[in-house]
Formats: sequence, structure tokens, C-alpha cells
Amino acid sequence: MTARHPVYTTFLSAGDMVRLVRRKGLGACMAGVAARIEADFRRWHEFDKSPRVASHSADGVIELMPIADAQSFAFKYVNGHPKNTRDGLPTVMAFGVLADVATGAPRLLSELTLATAIRTAATSALAARVLARRDSRRMALIGNGAQAEFQALAFRDLVGVRELRLFDTDPAATAKLVANLAGQGFTLAVCASVAEAVRGADIVTTVTADKARATILTPAMLEPGMHLNAVGGDCPGKTELHRGVLEAASVFVEYEPQTRIEGDLQQMPADFAVTELWRVLAGEHPGRRSALEITVFDSVGFALEDYSALCWLRDAAAELGIGERVELIPRQDDPKDLFGLLRGPDLTEGGQVDARLGAADAAQQAHALEHL
Amino acid sequence: MTARHPVYTTFLSAGDMVRLVRRKGLGACMAGVAARIEADFRRWHEFDKSPRVASHSADGVIELMPIADAQSFAFKYVNGHPKNTRDGLPTVMAFGVLADVATGAPRLLSELTLATAIRTAATSALAARVLARRDSRRMALIGNGAQAEFQALAFRDLVGVRELRLFDTDPAATAKLVANLAGQGFTLAVCASVAEAVRGADIVTTVTADKARATILTPAMLEPGMHLNAVGGDCPGKTELHRGVLEAASVFVEYEPQTRIEGDLQQMPADFAVTELWRVLAGEHPGRRSALEITVFDSVGFALEDYSALCWLRDAAAELGIGERVELIPRQDDPKDLFGLLRGPDLTEGGQVDARLGAADAAQQAHALEHL
Repeated sequence: MTARHPVYTTFLSAGDMVRLVRRKGLGACMAGVAARIEADFRRWHEFDKSPRVASHSADGVIELMPIADAQSFAFKYVNGHPKNTRDGLPTVMAFGVLADVATGAPRLLSELTLATAIRTAATSALAARVLARRDSRRMALIGNGAQAEFQALAFRDLVGVRELRLFDTDPAATAKLVANLAGQGFTLAVCASVAEAVRGADIVTTVTADKARATILTPAMLEPGMHLNAVGGDCPGKTELHRGVLEAASVFVEYEPQTRIEGDLQQMPADFAVTELWRVLAGEHPGRRSALEITVFDSVGFALEDYSALCWLRDAAAELGIGERVELIPRQDDPKDLFGLLRGPDLTEGGQVDARLGAADAAQQAHALEHL
Repeated sequence: MTARHPVYTTFLSAGDMVRLVRRKGLGACMAGVAARIEADFRRWHEFDKSPRVASHSADGVIELMPIADAQSFAFKYVNGHPKNTRDGLPTVMAFGVLADVATGAPRLLSELTLATAIRTAATSALAARVLARRDSRRMALIGNGAQAEFQALAFRDLVGVRELRLFDTDPAATAKLVANLAGQGFTLAVCASVAEAVRGADIVTTVTADKARATILTPAMLEPGMHLNAVGGDCPGKTELHRGVLEAASVFVEYEPQTRIEGDLQQMPADFAVTELWRVLAGEHPGRRSALEITVFDSVGFALEDYSALCWLRDAAAELGIGERVELIPRQDDPKDLFGLLRGPDLTEGGQVDARLGAADAAQQAHALEHL
């Protein structure tokens, strides 16, 4: 039984994603995703946007992040469970789907754990290109976990960072980062405190995981002209910046309604002024206005970045022939005859029925036969 | 490289679902899902509930339906595109995921197109068991598309319906339904109009697909003691009942905040009284109160029904050994070393790198090698 219009979905597993990134090269992936994010942010008004839907529990959060333009609907599933690493599980796990708006058919189902690290770093670097001083070379990297290498490499390639000052409360995480970044063209300094790492930095990136009201950066640490890339404060009750830091800076966000709930911005009154990043990328706002201004990108991660990543991945997977077709949606000869799937030819030809029903008990078999 | 705690997800494809339903028997599936839905509705307060998130376009809608209790988070992706059938595509396509709340790990990814038809019919029949007259045997079935057989069989098994009066604006849909229901123990009557089908019916089920303000049932068609199972009015701007029908009836809904937006209830003022079905199932409300009362189940489909279906499917798939393990989440030796996936052993052993990078152009290769 062949359908007239089978709905195939391409599945990119975690293994496929590793193959894809290895073949393209991480730098090419980061640059490609950044270009796609920038192009999509510039057509901001073409998207149907909403804050993500979060389901909170004691130890973490599970979120669904939908977005659509006239052609494609995308969503990401993503969790955040800081204690997972104690059990050998990732803090953040993600997957997502790209579907046709015209028909609702899902076309791509992809792992997004690795892809989220890439798109998050690409977005951070895109923001820093318009918000950090052009001569920025030295970056403090606070939080040396799963996202840290991606941030470092994106800032090297897209911003020009050459010197990293590292700090994490877990020295093993910093040791891992140092090992992974060896031979990548950085000067690395392992620091004993946040304050030491931040001192003299052009850019400060915070990517910490704790689901808590933290004040990792305080006003005393700020220096004129710094750009702060605050990635880890991305959940109600999870912050990284002292409110005085925000008061001293020009604050840029992805999507204001979401950041007011989730970002470091959650500490500020509703009328605290912020600028959406797309306005800078589209040329509506100058971004940084002086060499002395302190800028903050209060990043929480927005669905549009995943839409961009999914579109880029769809094209890259097609180009490289990576991925597997899966039958997420049933193939039907007659779309009004869903029941027909159960009546298929192999069941109407007598003798085969019993064999196929082997696993059910006798009573269930009788019931099943009656129904099919 | 083996991980300490690999996160495996079981994938149930559309083909797997057909195999599962054939082996269990459709009747056993419907009864099993109905029992699970009833048990879950009775513990209503244990769930973190929200109206579904809908993305509307000219021809349809794409929705995400999340829900969670303390153990499991579930969501369904589902579309509604009435014009799809003209192109040989289903009106409704769906899939869903069941995940662990404690860690965020996705455990089951399943097709839900077929499963949605089963859980929708199971919910309708559950509602009719407490809202229709106990001696109900004759049902009008308005809309003879993809859901119709499932409604008919659920009402036969769980409510006792033996006589069906069929109407659809598409005679081919009715002919398909008649053919599929042959030998299933029903007396069937094909009717020339809605009014003819409804006349003398104990239960009226409407499962129409048009995304429009329709008045398929009018007050003139009502008879004392009727139960209306209104399934097709499930979207803003998509209704099936004249408002006079609702005014004449006791109206029951799944989750009031969602039905006020999506159900036939969208036509009524905000203070129009309704009763949530779980209250009847939990014994807090009597349901039907007299043989003359007209009852309406204004069904739109609620995330809890999909949660119940996914839990039942998880158990059935495990019992029957159906489904495939897929790597939706990467396996990592060290969860803080996501970057390590790209550095894997096969790439650190010299000569294999070039071969693996074969698809990229020379410049990209150089870039990639530098990065890995």
C-alpha cells in the first residue's frame, strides 16, 4: 500500500549531528548559524512570536519554544536541570522540529543539545559584534561547563577574542576547558575568583548553571567600556548579575516579553529600559554608543535562534546526505480513512491475522478480531 | 566511547503504532486508554495544566499541548488543516513526547495521529457514559471523516450504541464509513441531512473539520434527553453548535480556560456556566440529572488525554517489545564536556580526520581541522 503523498520527516540523531558538525567544521557551523540568525533577526516582524512555555519543578524546568513565519513553524523542547551532572546526565538536553505552516507536516526532527550550544554561542558573538568595543581581545569566561568551549570559539572567530580568563567553582570544569582549548590560538589564564577573571577584561561572559538568585557580577567589578554577555540567568529565580550592574549599563535583550520573566532583567521594575537586539542588527539602533559605555546582553535564548539553527541544519543535512527518513506521520491512501491503516491488506487475507495477534491473550485476540 | 548514563528514547513510528494496535486489538486499546484517562482525570489536581499554545495561519493551526505531574512531562504536537485532504494529506497529524520531570530526559517519542483518534473517541465515550441516558442505543454521526470509525466503535463498546445515523457533506466519506463498519454489529442508516440524522437519536456526535463558524446543530433539532458529543468545534472561529443549543443544555467541558477560547463555548459570555468533566468522573458532580435533560460535551481535546495515551502506549510498547531506541540526546562520558563529542577518539587518531571531512571544501576543511 503506497500513499499518494507520504509525509516523510528527516530525523537527525545526536550521532548524525556530531557527523554533520565534524564534516562541516565547527567554525563553519557557527558562522553559518550566526549568519542565518542575523538574517532572521533582521526580518523580526515576519515572525509570530511568544514567550516560551515553561513547566517548573523542584530541580529544574522543561520548556517548549514555538515560533513561526509564513513558511515554517519551529519548536524546541529543552530542559534545564543543574543537578543532572551529579548523575552523569547533561544539564541541558534539547530537540526540535521544523514543520510546514501550509499543511502542518513535520519535515525535520533534530537533536538540539549540541545545536543549542552552537546557536547560543553564535547569538552571543553576534550581539558582541555590535555591542562590545571593536578592539576587544580579552574575555573573562565565568562558568566553564558544557557551553564554555562554544562561547570561546565563537568569540575567537566572530569577535576577535584572543585571551581568555577562566573561572568556575568546579576546578575540574576549568581543567577540562583548558585541555579542550589547547592549540586553539588562545592565551589562557586560570583565575582564583570571579573578580580576578573579570579584572581588565573587555568582555565578560557568564555561563553558569545554578538555578538560584546569584550575584556573580557586582557593580565593583565593572570597568568602563566592558561588554557583559550574561547567558546563564535564563529562568525565573535564576540570575547572575547584581541589579546595580544592570543599572549601570545599557541593556540589550532578545525578546523583551520573555526576558522580563526569565532574564537578569527579572530583578528590575517593568519600566526599566532595554533594547531588543534585532533593532541593532536591523540598523534601527546604534548599539554601543561610546568606548566608555557599559553594555549588557541579557541573553535567555529565544525560539527564533532555534528556528534559524533548524533551517540551517535542514539545508546542511540535505547537502551532506546526513539523516534518516522516519515515518512520524502515517501514510494513507485516503486521508479520510485513518481506520483503513488498521484494516490493511495483510490482515484481510485470512490466515495471517492469528499470527500477527500472537502477543495478546485469548480474550484480547477475540476482541481484536471482532474489531478489525 | 560508552556513556555512564546514556539517555535513550523509545521511538514509536506510525508503522509501530499500527502494529501495536493490531496486536492489542483496537477495542482493547480504546478500553485501556479510556481507563487511563478516567484514572488521570480523577487526580486532576496533581497536574500542572495550561491551555495549549496555538499558531494560526490562513489554512490551519499548529498547536503544542504540554502538561505534567510530579513524575512525567508530556506534550503533543498537532495540526488542523481542513484543506489538506484535497492534496491527499491528513487534516490532523500528531506526535508527542513523554519525559522525566526529575531530569528532563525524553523517554518516549511517539506518533500520535492514530493515537489521537483513539484517545478522542475514548474521551467522548467516557463523557457519554456519565452524561448520556443509560438506555442510549441510537447515535447520529455528523462528519464521517478520519475520526468517525473510532467514535462509532468506542460508543459501541463503552456506551452500548447499536444504531448509527450517518451524514456528511461528502458522500464518499459516508460510503467509506459504511464499508468500514460493515460486520461490526451496527444498524446503519445513511441520511440526506443533518436534521434527518439527528431525528430520534439518543446521542448526537459532531466531528466535522471545517475551520468556520458553522451551525450544524440548531435548537429546532433538539429532543428532550439528548446527549450531544460536539468534537469538531475546537478552535477559535471553528464552531458546530448554534448558541441556542448551548443555552438549552447543561454543558460539560474538559478544561474550562481552554474551552472558553476554543470550544463551541467561545460563542457564549464569560459567565455562561459549565462543568468540568473531571468533577463528574471524580463524583463531585452527578452529571446527567434527569431523563429529559439535554447534555452537551463541548470537547476540544486536552493535553491530559494525550498524557494518558502516551503513558498507556509506553507500557503497551514495552510489553509487546515494539519500538526502536533512538539517540535523541547525545551520550557523553562527562556531561560538562559537550565539546568532547566533536573531539571523539576516531578524530584524534591522525589519519582519519581528512577522510571524515571529505564533503567540505578546502577552505572549510582547513577551518574545521583548526577547530577540532
